[in-house]
Amino acid sequence: MVDNPFGIRRQRLREELERRGLAGAFIADPNNLFYLTGIMPHPSFPSILLLNLREAAAVIPQLGVVPPSQVPADDPLHLVTYANLAMADLRRHVDETNERDSAAREAFLRLGLAGKRLGVEGDLFLHRLARAFEIPSDHLSDIGPLLYAARVIKDDWEVSQLEYAVHLNDIGFGAAQAHLRAGVTDLQVFSKVWLAMAEELGGPFVLRGEFSGGPDISGRGGSAPVGRLMHAGDILIADMYPVINGYVADTTRNFVIGQPASWQSDLHQILEEALKRGEESIRPGLPASEMDKIVRGHVEASAPAGAVMFHHCGHGLGIGVGKAGHYPPYIVPHSRDILQPGMVFTLEPGLYITGTGGMRLEENFLVTETGGRPLGTFPKKLIVCGSS
Amino acid sequence: MVDNPFGIRRQRLREELERRGLAGAFIADPNNLFYLTGIMPHPSFPSILLLNLREAAAVIPQLGVVPPSQVPADDPLHLVTYANLAMADLRRHVDETNERDSAAREAFLRLGLAGKRLGVEGDLFLHRLARAFEIPSDHLSDIGPLLYAARVIKDDWEVSQLEYAVHLNDIGFGAAQAHLRAGVTDLQVFSKVWLAMAEELGGPFVLRGEFSGGPDISGRGGSAPVGRLMHAGDILIADMYPVINGYVADTTRNFVIGQPASWQSDLHQILEEALKRGEESIRPGLPASEMDKIVRGHVEASAPAGAVMFHHCGHGLGIGVGKAGHYPPYIVPHSRDILQPGMVFTLEPGLYITGTGGMRLEENFLVTETGGRPLGTFPKKLIVCGSS
Repeated sequence: MVDNPFGIRRQRLREELERRGLAGAFIADPNNLFYLTGIMPHPSFPSILLLNLREAAAVIPQLGVVPPSQVPADDPLHLVTYANLAMADLRRHVDETNERDSAAREAFLRLGLAGKRLGVEGDLFLHRLARAFEIPSDHLSDIGPLLYAARVIKDDWEVSQLEYAVHLNDIGFGAAQAHLRAGVTDLQVFSKVWLAMAEELGGPFVLRGEFSGGPDISGRGGSAPVGRLMHAGDILIADMYPVINGYVADTTRNFVIGQPASWQSDLHQILEEALKRGEESIRPGLPASEMDKIVRGHVEASAPAGAVMFHHCGHGLGIGVGKAGHYPPYIVPHSRDILQPGMVFTLEPGLYITGTGGMRLEENFLVTETGGRPLGTFPKKLIVCGSS
Repeated sequence: MVDNPFGIRRQRLREELERRGLAGAFIADPNNLFYLTGIMPHPSFPSILLLNLREAAAVIPQLGVVPPSQVPADDPLHLVTYANLAMADLRRHVDETNERDSAAREAFLRLGLAGKRLGVEGDLFLHRLARAFEIPSDHLSDIGPLLYAARVIKDDWEVSQLEYAVHLNDIGFGAAQAHLRAGVTDLQVFSKVWLAMAEELGGPFVLRGEFSGGPDISGRGGSAPVGRLMHAGDILIADMYPVINGYVADTTRNFVIGQPASWQSDLHQILEEALKRGEESIRPGLPASEMDKIVRGHVEASAPAGAVMFHHCGHGLGIGVGKAGHYPPYIVPHSRDILQPGMVFTLEPGLYITGTGGMRLEENFLVTETGGRPLGTFPKKLIVCGSS
């Protein structure tokens, strides 16, 4: 019985392969591999998934990859391991590429894929393998777009993963609120945010994000923390996009040291209202360009002289294994995307005054059957921190 | 005049291409691209380098990549940018893959590579591109091993980069020494280590490493920090392999909370002596298997009952863009590598007693014309930290 999300996804892929007259597939993109098996590929040592219409085989390195714990009984996932470290075996000489190719060939033959028409990822399938496995060009069909489209619509398991990632960001915001004050550096705050999130997660993770502070925020790009000393009155934009168990959260809060100046409160209030209007408008069928108009429209109509919003209003989120994790729907004026149930996306109105400073407010939302709901709970207010 | 390390490396590559009857090359591995241009590729948005025998063109994303500052006058490096974010352009619709392929085609034609015999990286060259650019299979030659071999031998610029990365690790060891005591967690120490290194570097970076503590160190694998509470008498193995400006350092020290037990001092002394014997033996021409015998031999001959060393004695280091940064020489019993001037490698004797604990001592060395020298300066002693 196919009783886990990975098995269900493989079944859906097979139905599509059959419809296209393909006998199997060769999956190398770490994002697709993770999506279809739950195996988190190692950044240095490739894993490969081979599928036919009944079963699957994952070629994985001996060291550094945890095999999946749940394998559906009706949908066997064979594991073919290869010796991946030239230095790990003390008894013999190991050539990693040879080991990997041999394992892939074993899986290829085991699944009976020789001579068959196969789906491959056009952006990843190697010229070398087409030659080595003697697959003629016209036997290969690009299923990359199909897999990407599947990953755009999240199932319940994926929504819970994204919700957890956003929850960790909320914990990080709490740590920023607790530690930001005049006299600390943006790097010190960043390390406190990381520690609070890592303690919740139970281990290290890669925190990427913008941590722009002080009056030099023009908003063009934004920057990582650089060791900037924070002063009373400074704004810190914390736009955090960590990868948590393979899924990317992307939320932003603005922190001010001491009582905010009136221009700061005013800008933030515009962003709060824009985000609220966006959230209230979420529904299946809404064009992303319309969503852009709703959010950007409010920001531009309310902005004081000199304050601009120059960037997108948002984008989809999902798996981000070694990649940024941007997906449709792209919330921009010329977007061709339409909101659909199961999409998870970010809305991020911002306003920036060159030479003075700026702010951006960002939350992640799920499109439901009837509307939308936010994934995070941290207050969408300008956060006031101690000034001494 | 070819006056920078990147231009010199491209010239060396061209000489080899000519020797093989190739008119150019198509480089997609981020490590090779960084090696040949100094451009740090973006993890999400690929960069591609195309070369003919006189000039080069780098296809890079519009956002997220810093163009190289030094371009040799005699060796033009054209930059062809592509719109890389579907959401970055507010005036039109952007399809990233199309934009990238168009830019690659522009570079391909500009360098006159159509119809020519080309070097490609066998492990990276896409089947899709061979078809799109109508390159017959027998016009493609695998230069992956050639580029990899070049990266094994470091020039002076690379040695200075590796030395800096090791220097940052030394700063991290200082922070561990200052902050480790009974009652803190391994994650707290890890975050202090990260912060001290980030402050020196001036920004965030990815710190990977083993941070095993307490009596459960069996040494089989080692682990990331997990939030373990540290107690008096505990050992912390800090084996850190950060990526600093594209280069990987890999050094280890052992920290004990309070005065060490005699078994701890005894094990560490064996490792110190083994590392010293290894260092003194470094010379061009020495087989890596001999080096293994020298270091492992001392450890095994001196180990008390129940203490074992089960892993490699070391490996080469270098560029690690999105990869582990392991290189020859592999210091293992069946290694086929020979030490050569310009190799940088790690030596890492360790001893582990199942159920009791273990230690590993590791330093990075450069092979010079006459011998070797360590890249780090942090004392190779068992580091005693405050117990309260």
